[in-house]
Amino acid sequence: MSTAPTLEDVRRAAERIAPYAHRTPVLTSRSIDAIVGSQLFFKCENLQRVGAFKFRGACNTVMSLTEEEASRGVATHSSGNHAAALTLAASLRGAPAHIVMPRTSPEVKKRAVAGYGASITYCEPTLEARESTLDEVVARTGATFVHPYNDHRIIAGQGTAGLELMEDVPGLDTVMTPVGGGGLLSGTSISVTSLDPTVRVIAAEPEGADDAHRSLIEGRIVPSVEPRTICDGLLTSLGEKTFAIIRNNVERIVTVSDAAVLEAMRLVWERMKVVIEPSAAVTLGVLLERKIDLTGRRIGIVFSGGNVDLGAFFAGLDPQNS
Amino acid sequence: MSTAPTLEDVRRAAERIAPYAHRTPVLTSRSIDAIVGSQLFFKCENLQRVGAFKFRGACNTVMSLTEEEASRGVATHSSGNHAAALTLAASLRGAPAHIVMPRTSPEVKKRAVAGYGASITYCEPTLEARESTLDEVVARTGATFVHPYNDHRIIAGQGTAGLELMEDVPGLDTVMTPVGGGGLLSGTSISVTSLDPTVRVIAAEPEGADDAHRSLIEGRIVPSVEPRTICDGLLTSLGEKTFAIIRNNVERIVTVSDAAVLEAMRLVWERMKVVIEPSAAVTLGVLLERKIDLTGRRIGIVFSGGNVDLGAFFAGLDPQNS
Repeated sequence: MSTAPTLEDVRRAAERIAPYAHRTPVLTSRSIDAIVGSQLFFKCENLQRVGAFKFRGACNTVMSLTEEEASRGVATHSSGNHAAALTLAASLRGAPAHIVMPRTSPEVKKRAVAGYGASITYCEPTLEARESTLDEVVARTGATFVHPYNDHRIIAGQGTAGLELMEDVPGLDTVMTPVGGGGLLSGTSISVTSLDPTVRVIAAEPEGADDAHRSLIEGRIVPSVEPRTICDGLLTSLGEKTFAIIRNNVERIVTVSDAAVLEAMRLVWERMKVVIEPSAAVTLGVLLERKIDLTGRRIGIVFSGGNVDLGAFFAGLDPQNS
Repeated sequence: MSTAPTLEDVRRAAERIAPYAHRTPVLTSRSIDAIVGSQLFFKCENLQRVGAFKFRGACNTVMSLTEEEASRGVATHSSGNHAAALTLAASLRGAPAHIVMPRTSPEVKKRAVAGYGASITYCEPTLEARESTLDEVVARTGATFVHPYNDHRIIAGQGTAGLELMEDVPGLDTVMTPVGGGGLLSGTSISVTSLDPTVRVIAAEPEGADDAHRSLIEGRIVPSVEPRTICDGLLTSLGEKTFAIIRNNVERIVTVSDAAVLEAMRLVWERMKVVIEPSAAVTLGVLLERKIDLTGRRIGIVFSGGNVDLGAFFAGLDPQNS
């Protein structure tokens, strides 16, 4: 797919992943609506396989490979949700997955990716080491490199969440997603604006990693340099493929403080009883901070994922430690 | 309702509460099934209004009152889910709710009950003070006392969760619930065994509060004395109404360690991304401890609630504190 995906590409992705991915539920909360003053519809990709929307794009990509490509496998460098998603998708196709991870990745992430059956190669925790190690792995195995977001197959796959949201909730006037590398945002914007050009697509980004916000204003990709935020899924820069789509379709990227992100995350855990990760809470954080007036609106929000390290919380509860 | 509720009573309760209560989803988890070796179907009452099944019984009771009774309101002593549930149900009928709470209740619980619009009377933290204060409140207001579990209207209401579970998941061979006062267990056992007498009803109870387990073995209500467990919803003794039903319908009550409860709770948060409280995790805890062999079974499990104090976890995450 060399040109930007269309709604048809998203629909084809939806068919391709249907046997493997969950059609995630849309949840609502009277009490959060009352706090925010809007009607919110939360598309729960935290309940997606591997706990994140990333499974959609990875699955679409892996299932798009030729038999011959699939037999040689897929490769990526990632320590997060993309690595787990790509590994699971590959295993569902019976294809090997080669993951390059920094030696310094948290044990919990190493175990998760290994648990899905990846062949892991550890490297030094620098971008240079990650890229050169990945090059070696690809040269050795012949695997197909799958970028976490700057890939039209990935973008089309991520767009399927927005497609389902639009199908399940009639009459939305606004759709919001987080933005990191822009895969979810660009894919969502294709589904949403193709189905209804009057719907506004608005993204949320942490103040301490506001490169996408600045990119949209400046009209060029501003790289993410030394981001500082608890939203560990939103640290990367936009890619040229995601940025081209976002420029066309996205009205605004609003920044949010980490304090508001935590407030939003806690509200969701307490009132809705679902676990979302900080990166998934930026959109509700924006609404709580009221940096943009969306009062009275009917807003679809994509909860991007639910992978949180719960160790500290459970250590505090453990009767062995009290 | 002076005789024990029948399936018809549960069906009538289901109709009565339908306009107000959520029909909660049934979730599954491939990875938890693989760990346990059974097929598990989790009825998510943590996603019920007020975050617990208690809303079902309270709502059935409040909606069963005559106009005249409703105008005088309802009263109970409780600091937990029953108080919140009764208050919300009363407010939906436009009826006052009088709640007697120990002065020493956690602030978070006081705020929750006040937030639903209760008229709260604080008392000393002894059973005697709670009962005498409640008597005063009832004498002054003419409100109807609603016991948290030893009441046939409450039992019929709690039975509606099991009714939905049996409707939504064909072919269950076992249904499990926690047991505290026995409202959920007795109500569930009526629905389940009336619809299919071959389904086994098994309950789980913390080792440190094993009065129901002992009651079933000894054939008389063994009171709960100085219970010690993190399952703060399972501290009370059975009532004579709940015990009479449980004796008839429940095969076994299995005890579980707090350590297994925490392991189960963490597994659910991490794998299923839903928040359950410790009391809701006892059933899965039993399966993890393998105190009873249910390998290969098709088991319906009621997640009773999701009200957890998240303060410690979020204090640890707050960037203000780091």
